[in-house]
Amino acid sequence: MTAAPSVEPVSAGSLAGFDHECDVLVVGFGCAGAAAAFEAATAGADVLVLERAGGPGGSSAMSGGELYLGGGTALQQACGFDDDPDNMFAYLRAAVGPHADEEKLRLYCDGSVEHFEWFRGRGLTFNESLYDAPSWMPPTMDGLMWLGENAHPYNTIARPVPRGHRPATRSFGGWLIMEALVAAAKAAGAACHEDTRATNLVVDDDGRVAGVVAQRYGAPVAYRARRAVVLTTGGFVDNEEMLAHHAPVLLGHGKVSDGLDDGSGIEMATALGAATRRMSAVEVALTALPAMLVRGVLVNGLGQRFVNEDVYPGLFSHAAVVHQPGPYWAIIDEEGYEDIPARDLWGVRPRFVTETLAELEEALGMPAGALEATVAAYNRYAERGEDPYFRKDPKWLRPLRPPFAAADPRIGFNAGDRESAGKGTGVAGFTLGGLRTTVDGAVLNHSGRPIPGLYAAGRAASGIHGEGYVSGTSLGDGTFFGRRAGRHAATSE
Amino acid sequence: MTAAPSVEPVSAGSLAGFDHECDVLVVGFGCAGAAAAFEAATAGADVLVLERAGGPGGSSAMSGGELYLGGGTALQQACGFDDDPDNMFAYLRAAVGPHADEEKLRLYCDGSVEHFEWFRGRGLTFNESLYDAPSWMPPTMDGLMWLGENAHPYNTIARPVPRGHRPATRSFGGWLIMEALVAAAKAAGAACHEDTRATNLVVDDDGRVAGVVAQRYGAPVAYRARRAVVLTTGGFVDNEEMLAHHAPVLLGHGKVSDGLDDGSGIEMATALGAATRRMSAVEVALTALPAMLVRGVLVNGLGQRFVNEDVYPGLFSHAAVVHQPGPYWAIIDEEGYEDIPARDLWGVRPRFVTETLAELEEALGMPAGALEATVAAYNRYAERGEDPYFRKDPKWLRPLRPPFAAADPRIGFNAGDRESAGKGTGVAGFTLGGLRTTVDGAVLNHSGRPIPGLYAAGRAASGIHGEGYVSGTSLGDGTFFGRRAGRHAATSE
Repeated sequence: MTAAPSVEPVSAGSLAGFDHECDVLVVGFGCAGAAAAFEAATAGADVLVLERAGGPGGSSAMSGGELYLGGGTALQQACGFDDDPDNMFAYLRAAVGPHADEEKLRLYCDGSVEHFEWFRGRGLTFNESLYDAPSWMPPTMDGLMWLGENAHPYNTIARPVPRGHRPATRSFGGWLIMEALVAAAKAAGAACHEDTRATNLVVDDDGRVAGVVAQRYGAPVAYRARRAVVLTTGGFVDNEEMLAHHAPVLLGHGKVSDGLDDGSGIEMATALGAATRRMSAVEVALTALPAMLVRGVLVNGLGQRFVNEDVYPGLFSHAAVVHQPGPYWAIIDEEGYEDIPARDLWGVRPRFVTETLAELEEALGMPAGALEATVAAYNRYAERGEDPYFRKDPKWLRPLRPPFAAADPRIGFNAGDRESAGKGTGVAGFTLGGLRTTVDGAVLNHSGRPIPGLYAAGRAASGIHGEGYVSGTSLGDGTFFGRRAGRHAATSE
Repeated sequence: MTAAPSVEPVSAGSLAGFDHECDVLVVGFGCAGAAAAFEAATAGADVLVLERAGGPGGSSAMSGGELYLGGGTALQQACGFDDDPDNMFAYLRAAVGPHADEEKLRLYCDGSVEHFEWFRGRGLTFNESLYDAPSWMPPTMDGLMWLGENAHPYNTIARPVPRGHRPATRSFGGWLIMEALVAAAKAAGAACHEDTRATNLVVDDDGRVAGVVAQRYGAPVAYRARRAVVLTTGGFVDNEEMLAHHAPVLLGHGKVSDGLDDGSGIEMATALGAATRRMSAVEVALTALPAMLVRGVLVNGLGQRFVNEDVYPGLFSHAAVVHQPGPYWAIIDEEGYEDIPARDLWGVRPRFVTETLAELEEALGMPAGALEATVAAYNRYAERGEDPYFRKDPKWLRPLRPPFAAADPRIGFNAGDRESAGKGTGVAGFTLGGLRTTVDGAVLNHSGRPIPGLYAAGRAASGIHGEGYVSGTSLGDGTFFGRRAGRHAATSE
């Protein structure tokens, strides 16, 4: 090894030998790794999972825990919603598109009911009730939530039904999902080496991936995988150089991760000639309050609206951060602010309150008349229950009247008086691009052929996503295609 | 070979032998290939260039022929402009940024005066006069043109001087540049095999690139490169699968290429473990008329302005196509239309002419009041010679008055009555991302180390560009870094 870390593959012949052996070696114990390990072990393989942190869970355990599932799950039925795989496919193709991976998406929708039952079979419970209000995350134990299905244009593309499935816990539920999946993988027989960071793939003379070299407490350890290596190492939001090269829109913003999403699996595989897909695709979240936006307007730094404010929050975030000049402002009036249920307010207070829009646009540094023109147009149509610009649902349309207020997403949620409030960008995200894989998780080379012995799933791979994202599709496709990768890795020859 | 074409590297040992040998093998005879071949041959190397088409030139020969040069060239001085490398760097860092490759950019600016002399030394002449009007391409023989340096915000970042250097010809000048560079390369001793399409890199046992396998008239031909292979195969706008995977924004639009920019060099190298940069970065051109836009407004499908219309046309195109909902419209009044010099009109006729903005916005399918509000705001400030929204130069600001017209970029330039007019998207582009290289053209692997014997330049590589583009920077950095790659390849060991 030289001073700078190498991600290049190592030939098996160059090693003194292997320290450990297994059939299927899973690298990374987040949701995709746990799903792969469970299925591979259940299929009879001797499975070992490497986790570089001190314990399993990864970024998945820190996530909100929404699972994007549908097609007629038991939970949807219990809540009175009639869904089917085609309807789910129509929505997702639009919402995670354009240019989503339709082959993966089709399987994902067709298998979603079974996948929900798989989660329940792992001991997760979902309360049979819907949280029927706009929110990044319901403040309740409700098991079902909307994720943009009921907003334009999606409500014209597919029959709107909610598909956000949430395990029964308050607030962030990722830890609960990961507790269940890690326990299931271990119960199925998967072992785990923690504090073990894979650094290079090991390759046989015939080009087959035969294991990995890892670092454990500062010393190299060699692992042999008799059947396959499954890379479930996550995305690359924590790797500044990879961001600069592939997804620079995220540079400078907050990171939705456990701090270890450094793209190592992607780099190890591409060093061996693996192909990637959509490395520039990202999820971004703007800390703007959905319950406030639906009752007001979201504007860019020039006071222009650019999206119907009732879309899934990840979509208004993407529309803002990727395409509009900042800063972004949530504009609302007193009546609207007071209409926000306390439980949906998340400690957001206006940064500016004024009697007139002229004063407000001046406070916000906008050209005189900019915000006035935007609100005048909004109000003129809202009187008639119309939004011909972006087609926000009529139920939210109401002319905005003095006094007015502007909330600043850079302040964040529940900021209180904490010193960091307002010092960030108000934006955090993660990467969606990764290794090009088949629907069974086999990693493909640049000629479109599988690299023998190598699989990937989760955010180390490119999943169902094109340009778009909705919550729950990352845990969703990570586990769904993690399971497929695990099953196929177990029988890889 | 199997049915589907493989781009994977071939081991030298697996070949029956080589059909041809040279010191430096250049793959692709566009501007970067010609520059590399010239320098390598001038340095004493035995140089062979492979060109898959029936003759040299590539996409470069079909280009406009602008060269983005400055820092105080003889042409700039003759036209009375005072430039220096720091000033040029300040502009380009902003214009081809954010996140441009500053190391390459610094060298490019510092070497620009010498590079201009190199072109003159190859026999190209440049008329010592400036075309001082907004245009995609001057309709004159003037040698110098503005490329956005005099528009906001760039005129606040660097001292505005024109840097578009144009060889003395009317209209497209790429063919003239390529005639000169191909002749120079051949005169320096470089040979060329035409109709020869490289398909795979050949690698020695020690991992060094030793040549290529090519197809010529349906038969495989093996080439050995004793010192290095230089990939100058161009970008990937003609490869639909690569576009879908890496730059989907270009899908469905026109292609600025000779039809052969299929990314083959990028794929051959990444198959060997080469790294890429910024594969999603693109140049896009909207067929909207600069001379019309500066005198009116450019609006999106909702009637909103989004950019100062006097920026370099590639920048308003990018602002529209990448970030705004279409269709896009050039809105102008009769007085403005009649003010356009005939030579800058390029056959553009309004698609709609109305007495009122209300009629016009209805014809354009915009919400009633949308365009009226935009023009009202524009006019109110134009009266005072101000554009607080986007800061268009005051010399273009004038209230728009009836009658009004809208031109449709989808119709194209000089469309006349041709049947295809209006059937395209009005957008064409090419890709800017490619192989990760050092400033000397060495191709780097995923560990940041050079792959022995492999160089790249031109659009097969990632050059000086971040997100942005201005005309002349592709021929510019293609030749500049092509020359460096050729020189270093000649002494590669």
